[in-house]
Amino acid sequence: MGIVLKGNVCYSQTINKLRTVENCYLVCEGKYLLGVFKTLPMLYKEFPLADYGDCLIIPGLCDLHVHAPQFAFRGLGMDMELLDWLNTYTFPEESKYIEIDYANKAYGIFTEALKRSATTRACIFATLHTPATMLLMEKLEKSGIVSMVGKVGMDRNCPDILRQVSAEAAYLSTKAWIEDSLDKFERTTPIITPRFIPTCSDELMRGFKKLQAQYSLPVQSHLSENIGEVEWVSELCPSSASYADAYEQFGLFGSEGAPTVMAHCVYCNEKDDELLQKNGVYVAHCPQSNINLASGIAPVRRYLKKGINTGLGSDVAGGCHLSILRAMSDAVGASKLYWRLISEEYEPLTLNEAFYLGTTGGGSFFGKVGKFEPGYEFDALVIDDSTIPTTNPLTLEERLARVIYCSNDSHIIAKYVRGEKLNNEPDK
Amino acid sequence: MGIVLKGNVCYSQTINKLRTVENCYLVCEGKYLLGVFKTLPMLYKEFPLADYGDCLIIPGLCDLHVHAPQFAFRGLGMDMELLDWLNTYTFPEESKYIEIDYANKAYGIFTEALKRSATTRACIFATLHTPATMLLMEKLEKSGIVSMVGKVGMDRNCPDILRQVSAEAAYLSTKAWIEDSLDKFERTTPIITPRFIPTCSDELMRGFKKLQAQYSLPVQSHLSENIGEVEWVSELCPSSASYADAYEQFGLFGSEGAPTVMAHCVYCNEKDDELLQKNGVYVAHCPQSNINLASGIAPVRRYLKKGINTGLGSDVAGGCHLSILRAMSDAVGASKLYWRLISEEYEPLTLNEAFYLGTTGGGSFFGKVGKFEPGYEFDALVIDDSTIPTTNPLTLEERLARVIYCSNDSHIIAKYVRGEKLNNEPDK
Repeated sequence: MGIVLKGNVCYSQTINKLRTVENCYLVCEGKYLLGVFKTLPMLYKEFPLADYGDCLIIPGLCDLHVHAPQFAFRGLGMDMELLDWLNTYTFPEESKYIEIDYANKAYGIFTEALKRSATTRACIFATLHTPATMLLMEKLEKSGIVSMVGKVGMDRNCPDILRQVSAEAAYLSTKAWIEDSLDKFERTTPIITPRFIPTCSDELMRGFKKLQAQYSLPVQSHLSENIGEVEWVSELCPSSASYADAYEQFGLFGSEGAPTVMAHCVYCNEKDDELLQKNGVYVAHCPQSNINLASGIAPVRRYLKKGINTGLGSDVAGGCHLSILRAMSDAVGASKLYWRLISEEYEPLTLNEAFYLGTTGGGSFFGKVGKFEPGYEFDALVIDDSTIPTTNPLTLEERLARVIYCSNDSHIIAKYVRGEKLNNEPDK
Repeated sequence: MGIVLKGNVCYSQTINKLRTVENCYLVCEGKYLLGVFKTLPMLYKEFPLADYGDCLIIPGLCDLHVHAPQFAFRGLGMDMELLDWLNTYTFPEESKYIEIDYANKAYGIFTEALKRSATTRACIFATLHTPATMLLMEKLEKSGIVSMVGKVGMDRNCPDILRQVSAEAAYLSTKAWIEDSLDKFERTTPIITPRFIPTCSDELMRGFKKLQAQYSLPVQSHLSENIGEVEWVSELCPSSASYADAYEQFGLFGSEGAPTVMAHCVYCNEKDDELLQKNGVYVAHCPQSNINLASGIAPVRRYLKKGINTGLGSDVAGGCHLSILRAMSDAVGASKLYWRLISEEYEPLTLNEAFYLGTTGGGSFFGKVGKFEPGYEFDALVIDDSTIPTTNPLTLEERLARVIYCSNDSHIIAKYVRGEKLNNEPDK
């Protein structure tokens, strides 16, 4: 048996084409959308109908980059740049996840917030601690959100308390964690997660490649976020032609069988662009974090012109907000400043393009996700925008713009993932 | 009889010094603060006490630049630059305020939102329509917020429907409006408001100067928001040495007896800076609007180094959000990109500096406003941040940072202006 939702639909058919349909029926069976209909076909008259009246229904949003253990301190330390911020806030905080009680409390806060947010799919960094990472996966599984979660690898250039004792130990513990988690959940799967080149020895990277290949796993990491970081990587990997090439040399930059996503990509050079494009690697564009950490602005227009896969990330807690709606407006704003201050060659993103990035752009990392087209997995948000008052009749496209710029989590009145409505009661 | 508030206090003593006092008493008599006390002096034991427990109490925030008639369409047209956006959205919308019923509905929406926001003082643009502007002033007066409201002057370079028929007609209607409104309200006063040089003839500017001088009124307008606008002004005023000088030549750039505030100041040159500084003119920094309209980034650090008065503005609907807390985090973000992309000579604003700008920085435009020091008018926000959960004990300064980055209007549980608690029931 399926379900039917009635309301006003907006989604990106392509990056240049927003489709809006007033007062229509979304028909879903199992995990999948069967179609969008102006008149409900006889065939589906028996399906239970959720009538959302004049609400907007949009695809669920995809967060391609978020750090679960950083959520509890979001908004702090924002007067620092990346490397200082990591050492002062992030690493001390992440070291606390060795205690399962602490992780239970902090990941509870994160998961509840994610449930109430606009996100339906996420690529998530945990810490290096296996029990805490498994606990996070359990909580996420219960939340109904679909996620890929990474036990983080670090065996150099970090505080002792967060350094894995050896590359081999890291390899073995990661392998054990993968075997435990790989088939344990319906919605929650492991993803290979070297933190970034500076914290991962060559041997650890080779170990991660071995695991990636053995289990056909996706990969997530960071690329070219900050000028100092890029210089550091070129010193650490003298044989690499670029930062992306450093990952590529280890076979962790767009492997067979599963996609790779790289957060930030603020300072990619031509060689990096070429590898991103050739290998189908995803850019997780995190504009708010790039501003908060004074990193700069990623050249998203350039990536789009080159046909590089691009989606959005909140990068909490470099970003302070889980909302991918906020990431959309931040992406537009950042692209305007890129155009104004860096290069008029790259015109600003339109709001519709940013909406695409947060839905289909990132959604394709998870398969057929992010659009309301037949055969796509059905992830949706129902948004009541009646409390964003106006005096003029608005088109659906205009209402969507106001939702992106002016709404918050309280406007989301229902959330569906893979065809199932999420329970929005807090998990006890 | 006075009142006493109990809670955790944060305010900027100077731009470089945040004062935080845990668990203290704010004592207020009439409009004014008598002091902040760790122990309540005997003298005030009889004053009624509002115990806000573990809440934060911060000064009310000052919005130095907001367009009331644009609130109803905030979030629309953000893919345009200033001059196109004015012609496509703003001017057609503002022309509707000739109808008092429309104004009643739209200004009702604006005033209710302002009441719920963190703003306690505001410099507000209305439209050129006198009845609608008076209606807005009545609504604002009832709201309890203290504001300066401008009937806007425009007699050239705008659609016919918004063009005052002559400079003389504009002068006369503005004079009549000033006389009607000047002593009518306790909290709401007129401010001389030429929209900006491009829409005001020399004769209109001279008329405004006459009114400014006759009634000792403050002045608000726009300065150097956009590159095309700056070029246009230099063509329109060939005898002026700079955009600021064009206002100065009319005597409307920091007059005796009342202050002037200029929104934006993104592209000021040395001559502009000199006049801003010399005349004590306020910069209303509106970072979100400057990003949304792809204008650029104002050099706030430069203004601070030169001792130029600076506060924050929401610039709704160039900005989409009334929140001056949001303006603080946007100001910090914009200054980071200024430092990274334009000039490393000007270090980013710290969050505490941005907090100063949104409280004392803008507050001084209204007199002794924006700090919790004896003799200051008592404007305050009581903020319950317990629903921004964390796992670690936080200092008051850290809690304030999270309020700035992560709170929304729903966290404001009480608002005081000039010693009175605002009623937060909607106006019927």
